[in-house]
Amino acid sequence: MPDSERLRERPFRICSWIYLPRLPSVQGVSTVRVGFEELQHTIQQAFETAGMQRDDAAICARIHAESTLDGVNSHGLNRVPRFVQFIHEGWIHLGAEPQLVREFGALRVYDGARAPGVLNALWATDRAMEIAAEHGIALLGLRNTNHWMRGGSYGWRAAGRGYILIAWTNTESCMPPWGAREPRVGNNPFVMAVPRPGGPLVLDMAMSQYAYGKLQTTRLKGERLPHPGGFTSDGVLTDEPGPIEQSQRILPTGLWKGSGMAILLDVLAAVLSEGLPTNGIDALRQGSCVGCSQVFLCIDPKKLGGDAALAQIADSVVEYVEGAEPDEAGRTPEYPGEGAVRRRERQRRDGIEVDNGMWAEVRALAGQ
Amino acid sequence: MPDSERLRERPFRICSWIYLPRLPSVQGVSTVRVGFEELQHTIQQAFETAGMQRDDAAICARIHAESTLDGVNSHGLNRVPRFVQFIHEGWIHLGAEPQLVREFGALRVYDGARAPGVLNALWATDRAMEIAAEHGIALLGLRNTNHWMRGGSYGWRAAGRGYILIAWTNTESCMPPWGAREPRVGNNPFVMAVPRPGGPLVLDMAMSQYAYGKLQTTRLKGERLPHPGGFTSDGVLTDEPGPIEQSQRILPTGLWKGSGMAILLDVLAAVLSEGLPTNGIDALRQGSCVGCSQVFLCIDPKKLGGDAALAQIADSVVEYVEGAEPDEAGRTPEYPGEGAVRRRERQRRDGIEVDNGMWAEVRALAGQ
Repeated sequence: MPDSERLRERPFRICSWIYLPRLPSVQGVSTVRVGFEELQHTIQQAFETAGMQRDDAAICARIHAESTLDGVNSHGLNRVPRFVQFIHEGWIHLGAEPQLVREFGALRVYDGARAPGVLNALWATDRAMEIAAEHGIALLGLRNTNHWMRGGSYGWRAAGRGYILIAWTNTESCMPPWGAREPRVGNNPFVMAVPRPGGPLVLDMAMSQYAYGKLQTTRLKGERLPHPGGFTSDGVLTDEPGPIEQSQRILPTGLWKGSGMAILLDVLAAVLSEGLPTNGIDALRQGSCVGCSQVFLCIDPKKLGGDAALAQIADSVVEYVEGAEPDEAGRTPEYPGEGAVRRRERQRRDGIEVDNGMWAEVRALAGQ
Repeated sequence: MPDSERLRERPFRICSWIYLPRLPSVQGVSTVRVGFEELQHTIQQAFETAGMQRDDAAICARIHAESTLDGVNSHGLNRVPRFVQFIHEGWIHLGAEPQLVREFGALRVYDGARAPGVLNALWATDRAMEIAAEHGIALLGLRNTNHWMRGGSYGWRAAGRGYILIAWTNTESCMPPWGAREPRVGNNPFVMAVPRPGGPLVLDMAMSQYAYGKLQTTRLKGERLPHPGGFTSDGVLTDEPGPIEQSQRILPTGLWKGSGMAILLDVLAAVLSEGLPTNGIDALRQGSCVGCSQVFLCIDPKKLGGDAALAQIADSVVEYVEGAEPDEAGRTPEYPGEGAVRRRERQRRDGIEVDNGMWAEVRALAGQ
């Protein structure tokens, strides 16, 4: 039975993990190290082979490679086969471009025309920066788009160019709302990014405590989650990943709080883009995030206190937080985005660790 | 030793709970029911006795009474003595008014001039709605203000008038960032509100999993928290409230996620209001939230798809989420704001349950 048919039988169970075509990278199990340029080039070839124009393929490949470089393989290399599959299913429209739906002051609504989600989101981020440069602020809703992969990519881009970005996407249902046993809310990733000369602050958080990819890798290592991550089919809270993968009852981040925030993010994504809420994405019964709604709120700090004032505030917060006495678990407090930079620098030096099987599959898609 | 001196000795330990002057309401222990009008009138008298002008006292009293009516006693009646104390300390400036600092398109920065936080925040919400009615969106930063009590109050106000509001405040340090044992981030309450004819969606969430008030009432009932709420002084995660109150190591909502979001909310509150971040509030060494920074982002849905489209989306999300199969714990899925309306209607009918000792104290402040 093809995936598309399996999906139609499980309208509320179209979580990302169903599509995971190969096991993601598990430390020490079966990984290989590749250089950034080789990774990017191979992904680009895979996308061109799937029919993407060269320029588009290059941009998409760079975003996937950068996410992998930062250690987010789940939304980098590991998504390439699924993205290619979505193209073949006809769910993603190569060559399509966002169309203006509405314009009022600093507000914009665009229809993403089902173009590749990464291209749409990158375009929307750049457009929001242009509008913010003029108006001080931009609120851009993007409907009818596709999976943007790592949401943080757009935060890094805006913050790297001196802009504040708050952005989010809705998704298909993949998490039960608090008080329910059935997935009816998305994990709706939420991004906040602030520029800072010493390194931007980039928060990229889904409304689930753990991603399905984390459950999978933890199970494969024979380990337990550091903290409970969901419920068994019988409604028992557990830190064992396997039963949660089976029940699809992942825990909202912060329990009832992440559930409530997921609901508000969904309503606002749909309202501000005049697009589909999660229930509408579920009703499409296509792949993960196909037809989703996104919001890009961008602010130009130069229209407020300016870059120096921003840097002074951001530095003071970073220094204060990181000056706190570390806990007994051997952790140290960090600002959001710090870990990504550390992994980025290490993997640029030592090579990027990827799953052997996944790397072989993407190379095959690239005709290598 | 007066409170102000105790505070100066504990610059990083100026959490709200230190100030809790009486035990909050504990079901079945020692409570009494009062009517809304009596509650509001008594609080107003207490504020007038403390020196507030009649009109200001009436507005502040209504906000406190409405929060108590909705069951949020911790930011309603129970805060009245502390608010009066802050006036006497000279930390709150009666009669002061917000001053415009900066204006650019739909951006505004105001200095709250240390006026009562409730009056400032209500004024800022109304001002943001005015600007949004003109520009479609408003981003209003408010610095140098004071505790806004229940953040949801401003969400309810905006949504009740047909506007979308996203708002947050920073606070003094009251929570260790993830990886630390020392409080160096605020719980920085975050509000999202969407109008809806059948009842607005209003999310009002602090970045800590539980409030100190919840720890206190749970301990007094001799119970445990439903889920772990923080660490003991030895760094052990626990659901026993007492040891968490002692260690001040409350858990961020969603563990590392709420910690990261608190950091970003703090930086943005300070940057967008050109005001103090949490470390600056701590350095003031005054009362809870004195000198804090707030953000009011308001959107007029009439400038997008309009009210009917918004209602259709919001209704579909509510129906979908609430149609999910309930879990085994006897809960049912709800949208944010639903519980407040239920408590509001019940207490308007049956009277508002308040703590006996607290009620006596406020009546004494009112000269009754």
